[in-house]
Amino acid sequence: MLYELSVEIMPKPGIADPEGATILRALHALGFDVTKRVAVGKVIKLQVEADTGEEALQAAESMAAKLLANPVIEVARVSLVQEHVASTD
Amino acid sequence: MLYELSVEIMPKPGIADPEGATILRALHALGFDVTKRVAVGKVIKLQVEADTGEEALQAAESMAAKLLANPVIEVARVSLVQEHVASTD
Repeated sequence: MLYELSVEIMPKPGIADPEGATILRALHALGFDVTKRVAVGKVIKLQVEADTGEEALQAAESMAAKLLANPVIEVARVSLVQEHVASTD
Repeated sequence: MLYELSVEIMPKPGIADPEGATILRALHALGFDVTKRVAVGKVIKLQVEADTGEEALQAAESMAAKLLANPVIEVARVSLVQEHVASTD
């Protein structure tokens, strides 16, 4: 079965986030003073073939640890978005 | 009150995603043949001061439309992550 997973990768607290700082300034310049903080990260959507959702999650966590995220400066959070994705191939 | 929101920005279907294609090749090279598709986008976490969650959502959607996403090539999805964030200022 094909599962859709989402890997959200954010900079660790304390790691510089210049893109976030720039967006915060730009939002204030546009009048969005209600915005107090901005952090920018990456999201990687995966479609993974597996027998169970648990197996798909474990595979995605292994991919995040081995390739997708840099554990020195980033935190990765893997979540199952959808089971039984209709194959489009 | 301070609300935490997440804006997920993905390339529209049909828009080239070279980063996703590169990650898919790299995953296959590492033996993760179970991965059938990869798409890479951005996630922007916002802390927004508002009276209600609905008001915070509307503000974030307006920010996404005006600055955060490029509607020609990207799709933005705004969601409320958490209400009553403890202020850290």
